[in-house]
Amino acid sequence: MPTLDDIRQAARELDGRIHRTPMLTSSALNERFGAELVLKAELFQKTGSFKVRGLLTKLLRLTAEERGRGVITVSAGNAAGALSWAARDAGVPATVVMAKTAVPAKIDAARGYGATVELVEGDLIAEYERIRDERKLTGVHPFDDEDVITGHGSLGLEVLDERPDLETVLVPVGGGGLISGVALAVKLVKPGIRVIGIEPEQADVVSRSLAAGAPQKLPTARSIADGLAAPVCGTRNFPLIQEYVDDVVRVSEESLLEATRLVMSRTKLAVEPAAAAPFAALLSGLKTQCPTAVVLSGGNLDVAKLML
Amino acid sequence: MPTLDDIRQAARELDGRIHRTPMLTSSALNERFGAELVLKAELFQKTGSFKVRGLLTKLLRLTAEERGRGVITVSAGNAAGALSWAARDAGVPATVVMAKTAVPAKIDAARGYGATVELVEGDLIAEYERIRDERKLTGVHPFDDEDVITGHGSLGLEVLDERPDLETVLVPVGGGGLISGVALAVKLVKPGIRVIGIEPEQADVVSRSLAAGAPQKLPTARSIADGLAAPVCGTRNFPLIQEYVDDVVRVSEESLLEATRLVMSRTKLAVEPAAAAPFAALLSGLKTQCPTAVVLSGGNLDVAKLML
Repeated sequence: MPTLDDIRQAARELDGRIHRTPMLTSSALNERFGAELVLKAELFQKTGSFKVRGLLTKLLRLTAEERGRGVITVSAGNAAGALSWAARDAGVPATVVMAKTAVPAKIDAARGYGATVELVEGDLIAEYERIRDERKLTGVHPFDDEDVITGHGSLGLEVLDERPDLETVLVPVGGGGLISGVALAVKLVKPGIRVIGIEPEQADVVSRSLAAGAPQKLPTARSIADGLAAPVCGTRNFPLIQEYVDDVVRVSEESLLEATRLVMSRTKLAVEPAAAAPFAALLSGLKTQCPTAVVLSGGNLDVAKLML
Repeated sequence: MPTLDDIRQAARELDGRIHRTPMLTSSALNERFGAELVLKAELFQKTGSFKVRGLLTKLLRLTAEERGRGVITVSAGNAAGALSWAARDAGVPATVVMAKTAVPAKIDAARGYGATVELVEGDLIAEYERIRDERKLTGVHPFDDEDVITGHGSLGLEVLDERPDLETVLVPVGGGGLISGVALAVKLVKPGIRVIGIEPEQADVVSRSLAAGAPQKLPTARSIADGLAAPVCGTRNFPLIQEYVDDVVRVSEESLLEATRLVMSRTKLAVEPAAAAPFAALLSGLKTQCPTAVVLSGGNLDVAKLML
């Protein structure tokens, strides 16, 4: 398990390579929910999501031999963009395995950073393992990895550094990568803080894993919050979530759409639906102790679906 | 004609009542266009657009008698929200005349600020004049007004104050309110600066007015950039545009849609299509001397059309 020193070290390594994203407030949203919310605008992060934190940390810790073979990951989209960007920067060839149904902008982003994009159907993880082994590439799991968790923890340090008075942090949940790192970091700094995860009802693998007491796997996971539609909960993420996350709540597809529109219209931030998930929970009645940080995890919206 | 002192006085009156919006940069957009662009993020302004600058200035300059009667304006949407907000703040009753086809979020915003909203069909300006006279309200023209122009000029002062090295300012154009104020302000401060307006081909009343040498009126003006679909060029705006605007270019509906998607995907700012108009021009080949300020005029997007 990463220590606070490990996370601080990762934060130092990331410093200057990625953005320290702003923490913003919206009086309209505060009024709407009767709450004091602080928005960690990670949609302004390099590559448009928090994913670079963990994936760049991982890449920096690979051996020269591992890098020399080239790296590969599997992703709904944001991890693909993040690894492709980090690899390009480091001169490492990258391959990313994505679903044919991935958001086109996310596919284009990975290609734009020079990665080899493999679009597959069916079991993404099986395809990823097959290609990784066939091509002798260095596998980088998008979330079930200790270095990735450590890197994501840097976000937790930043929010508490800027707002030590925070009582709660709301974090969107896919396979558990972001929340395991953030929860670990903030609880090590401030044990009394509450961390609440939000995941789609249609992709609720972390809720199911917590209920079962062990990481579960879903046959399918589809959500308009494509970034949260992980079919598995990471084995390294799960014990951290068990220990450090206070609650994980599930939200409907309707509330995710309403939340995306609400955040966009009130803040003028182009959040992707995954980032609006905490607001879907607030719209559904979640009460939270304030000040509350809300992690706006990314902004890689499917703009082709923006009809005007 | 407003003087530089008039505009500075308006800016002082606005100070503390509205936001000084940030000027942002996007390395992705700079690379895309081979340009140094500075984005004046007026979508973060109170009520989500620049309109409060002029309309609050106007409201502050009305007599007690004029305010006591209540105010009325006519608007594609953003002026309605701006006047409603300013009037609520000042305890003045507001009526706004809007088209039945206006963006629902803009109608809701005016209602949310407590205004009486009159949704009409046909000739908006005729309906506005009829209701104004019947109810003995104080008419506030959304752009053809010297105080409104003076207030909008404050935006020009801000961009040059922050970036005195600017060579060009790109401004979306509807009826000419914003660009007349901004052009006047920046040219009075820095005569050598270039000001270029951008208007939709389908709502090109300012281009037609310049060609004709007098303010023109269009039978219809419809554009996905609803904020720019003014059917008339203001009589007070026109001479300022003639004197201080270097060029007005026209952009297609397709380029407006592409520009909106481009700006949103690269900057994660939820711009409305009017605000993306300068990028429609850049996409269509406009060359500009840099550094160039781009006025992102508003963010009141029709989020109901955001399908996910």
